[in-house]
Amino acid sequence: MPAKDYFHEEVREALQRDGWKITHDPYKVEYEDIRLAIDLGAEKLIAAEKGKKKIAVEIKSFLSKSFIYEFHEALGQFLNYRWILRRTDTDRELFLAVSQDVYEEFFPHALVQGMIEEENIQLLIFKPNEKEITKWIKQQNIKDT
Amino acid sequence: MPAKDYFHEEVREALQRDGWKITHDPYKVEYEDIRLAIDLGAEKLIAAEKGKKKIAVEIKSFLSKSFIYEFHEALGQFLNYRWILRRTDTDRELFLAVSQDVYEEFFPHALVQGMIEEENIQLLIFKPNEKEITKWIKQQNIKDT
Repeated sequence: MPAKDYFHEEVREALQRDGWKITHDPYKVEYEDIRLAIDLGAEKLIAAEKGKKKIAVEIKSFLSKSFIYEFHEALGQFLNYRWILRRTDTDRELFLAVSQDVYEEFFPHALVQGMIEEENIQLLIFKPNEKEITKWIKQQNIKDT
Repeated sequence: MPAKDYFHEEVREALQRDGWKITHDPYKVEYEDIRLAIDLGAEKLIAAEKGKKKIAVEIKSFLSKSFIYEFHEALGQFLNYRWILRRTDTDRELFLAVSQDVYEEFFPHALVQGMIEEENIQLLIFKPNEKEITKWIKQQNIKDT
């Protein structure tokens, strides 16, 4: 099992340093069925606000041996969470937080880039040591507009 | 780690009994980058043909403790494989094979049903003991047509 929450504190602090107010940590994503909700609740998202903007952040360290295995999991989770948010917390945008090192090493690959664009995955890139957000990446996919 | 290939032989036999010729087992999905390809190759898809129809089948047992965790993984994998197939083996359709029991227990849930429809995931439902395919489910999502 990958070290899921490895960068949790780093991302939380980076968000605060970027002017975000942490409103829920963990932010629990739930939908109807209790049995599914318990499992979903095991993942720890962070919810934050800045002015009128509301976001939820899924953090993936990608520190396990297989990047692609963890990417599958991150992608599936992201799509599930987004599906739920669109029905329960409609003005909150979801971001996948990825460290700068992982972003530079893996995200230029055609498959990863293709999936990110096709599925309109919004990214928050951060430097863990500096606890700093370096980039927000929003996709421009027609499917989601 | 879930028992990934638990129903592999059952699905293979069910396909054969349904008149499919197994052409690749495992069927390796690869795309450009070698490092990603090695990881992708660890998953074992089955490729089959029947007349002019060509399919690839991803098998998920959903026998781990957390259905939703395995569903995230299955969904991410399916989308990745489909993305690659559309660029490398364009007339081959991808199906996710799910046992009848799992299908009846989990797939009626709104979240699962919603994701399956939204992402246009095609399903092959089978009975493992009988080694029999009971249903092919194709989605009618405008995104993929």
